[in-house]
Amino acid sequence: MKHVALSRLGRRSEPPAISWLMEVALSRPQMISLAAGFTDNETLPVTDARELVDEVLKSRKNGRPSLQYGMPAGDPRLRTLTARDCRLKDGAPAENKAYSADRMIITNGSQQMLYMVTEALCDEGDIVLVEDPTYFVYLSILQSRGVRGRGVRLAEDGIELEHLAAVLERLKKSGEIRRVKFLYLVSYYQNPTSVTTSFAKKAGALKLLKQYERAAGHPIYLLEDAAYRELRFRGADEKSALAVKGHANRVIYAGTYSKPFATGLRVGFGILPEPVYTAAIRIKGNHDFGTSNLPQQLVAHAIGSGRYERHLTELQRRYAHKARVMEAAMKRYFPAEAGWWVPRGGLYIWARLPKTMRSGMKSKLFQTAIGRDILYVPGELCYVDDPARRKPDHEMRLSFGGGTEANIQAGIERLGSVLRKMFKAAKR
Amino acid sequence: MKHVALSRLGRRSEPPAISWLMEVALSRPQMISLAAGFTDNETLPVTDARELVDEVLKSRKNGRPSLQYGMPAGDPRLRTLTARDCRLKDGAPAENKAYSADRMIITNGSQQMLYMVTEALCDEGDIVLVEDPTYFVYLSILQSRGVRGRGVRLAEDGIELEHLAAVLERLKKSGEIRRVKFLYLVSYYQNPTSVTTSFAKKAGALKLLKQYERAAGHPIYLLEDAAYRELRFRGADEKSALAVKGHANRVIYAGTYSKPFATGLRVGFGILPEPVYTAAIRIKGNHDFGTSNLPQQLVAHAIGSGRYERHLTELQRRYAHKARVMEAAMKRYFPAEAGWWVPRGGLYIWARLPKTMRSGMKSKLFQTAIGRDILYVPGELCYVDDPARRKPDHEMRLSFGGGTEANIQAGIERLGSVLRKMFKAAKR
Repeated sequence: MKHVALSRLGRRSEPPAISWLMEVALSRPQMISLAAGFTDNETLPVTDARELVDEVLKSRKNGRPSLQYGMPAGDPRLRTLTARDCRLKDGAPAENKAYSADRMIITNGSQQMLYMVTEALCDEGDIVLVEDPTYFVYLSILQSRGVRGRGVRLAEDGIELEHLAAVLERLKKSGEIRRVKFLYLVSYYQNPTSVTTSFAKKAGALKLLKQYERAAGHPIYLLEDAAYRELRFRGADEKSALAVKGHANRVIYAGTYSKPFATGLRVGFGILPEPVYTAAIRIKGNHDFGTSNLPQQLVAHAIGSGRYERHLTELQRRYAHKARVMEAAMKRYFPAEAGWWVPRGGLYIWARLPKTMRSGMKSKLFQTAIGRDILYVPGELCYVDDPARRKPDHEMRLSFGGGTEANIQAGIERLGSVLRKMFKAAKR
Repeated sequence: MKHVALSRLGRRSEPPAISWLMEVALSRPQMISLAAGFTDNETLPVTDARELVDEVLKSRKNGRPSLQYGMPAGDPRLRTLTARDCRLKDGAPAENKAYSADRMIITNGSQQMLYMVTEALCDEGDIVLVEDPTYFVYLSILQSRGVRGRGVRLAEDGIELEHLAAVLERLKKSGEIRRVKFLYLVSYYQNPTSVTTSFAKKAGALKLLKQYERAAGHPIYLLEDAAYRELRFRGADEKSALAVKGHANRVIYAGTYSKPFATGLRVGFGILPEPVYTAAIRIKGNHDFGTSNLPQQLVAHAIGSGRYERHLTELQRRYAHKARVMEAAMKRYFPAEAGWWVPRGGLYIWARLPKTMRSGMKSKLFQTAIGRDILYVPGELCYVDDPARRKPDHEMRLSFGGGTEANIQAGIERLGSVLRKMFKAAKR
């Protein structure tokens, strides 16, 4: 049988780079991985979770809803608590309809929300605008679905609006604007750069997108991925795009309890405008009828009891410390040629090398690092295929999320020594 | 803005009939619903679940994996236990590779497995062969994805192989055989008819499909949905299609812990051959990185501790009783014109009326029943759109799964009285 039965999607789906990185890490037990986006193992709320489940299942009668089918949109109490939390963070009044629990869907992590929104809006050949660089698993969703991405350059306070305007204008001229469905922003402590998009830039982006809707012949949305919003440890919170006046009907907001509470529970959520909400809720019904109820109830009880807030405060303190440890080690061990933005939240430091120093999967640097049992995420993986530019290949995503303090220090010391040797050799 | 941005999938996704039925049920509190596929509330393992989570999270160290990211394929212990259970049910030796844990993926209910397999194999316009009638949520997956279905007639021991042969031959003649990707069978106590496919028919179907692979130009798979396998209360278990010698590389087996343990946990699984396995695991990674770990660990501990087996025995006893209650009430209250197959497992009785008595959503029978506060699933919802025949519209799916004994009796009495009046009026 020469031909496979697989669909185009089935044939297109590539081995995700992340599994390859994980395999490398697992195959060398002495490996220090600064690549994994794991959250801190020490802070996983094991005791909290045990007590919370105990509360949820205390009475046979009240415990049943956790074990019975629920609604595709998710547990009503969790939706209400989450919608309220989003509204309060944005300082919006109770009557603001943009934060209604009726516009909310609970999903299996925010990842499923990203997947469903892409299903609901994009056909093969459609275009999604993304940050340059962006979250690489999202690129894998686009690739598998045959959706094209176009990169918008990133500054320390979010995408460059001038570049967004130029990209939109170019797409209008080529007629491809009709295929543009949304702009995807990882807006808080971005994966991979830790950049936070300012509220002004969110508003600016929404206005720009609006200007191109006539040419597109349909609404152009902003998909705001706020997965890291709660992992803030320096500075103030920025308002979400939902707070941009008059534009909430173009904003899809995706959030999660994975990062701020427990990744393994897979409880995320989205706030969506019509008609995307209706399409997404039907897709959710077809996917799985609704997210597992026990984890949903656990999270709802965690919020209701104040345990969630307490846990989050501790988590922020801890990540702040680990970020400082990593940065101090980088200052000490990295050569002067390397630069980075100081993170104010999230799990990552994005290190930039001179453009002549390749960092990609096939580069000497990456291979030497693996040989020295140190793993990072090559920056090239975080760039979408875009005919308008070559993929930058001189950056590294370094995570301080999963490792211990000692691991982070040892890992940066080792990587720094590899880097210094590489630069010395390059100068010769 | 005249045009919406939604994708073809987004635009095609219809309000699922099941949500409409649920809304009707919720809007009339006095309504007795024989429509919902809920499992028995009384038997939900609340105490078991509480004790199991307590075990899982007992120590901070051992509890962490339940709250941390896992692998997209799922918890290794749960995969091993589940693969072993499937193998033992089929009486296969330990060395039989068809039941390897390496071919298994844990999903959010078996529903997600059905979705992912359809994504991995079917493009828009492709064809899936289904039972006539079949599981209506699966039809909703096909419809939303633009995949065509073709019905194969059902007898009391599974699909009519002669009809399957005729359908395949017809598709070969029309050239459409190249679009046929798989045959979907709900093989145990089928939703909606409670029919179980005999092992001989599974083998016969696989042989027939094989004969058409040359004309198709690719493998044609059998997707066996065994969601109700464990809810057996009469007769012996049938072997799964994985046990058909020489054909395991064409069988995709989907199972679940939803029905036999707790629906709300959303833990299902699939066993898949290459290259479908590889495509599905990548799709799973893009969907959600893997199923929520806490429910997975809970189920693994339930199996390991023997609690799952004990719970299942009790569940089988209870459903056997409720099925008897429903059937006795039907014998007593239904008019002689109604007929049905006696269920040997599952959650449903499929009642057939004379063809002149319409039972569909717009029928007088259905509307009168709603007026009398009694709800059933109209048979027409369970038939795929197929140009080769008109949709039968004289059947009803009656569920004994969710209701109490008193509810089942009262519901059947009410529905019987509506039916008798309708028949009397028809005779005048």
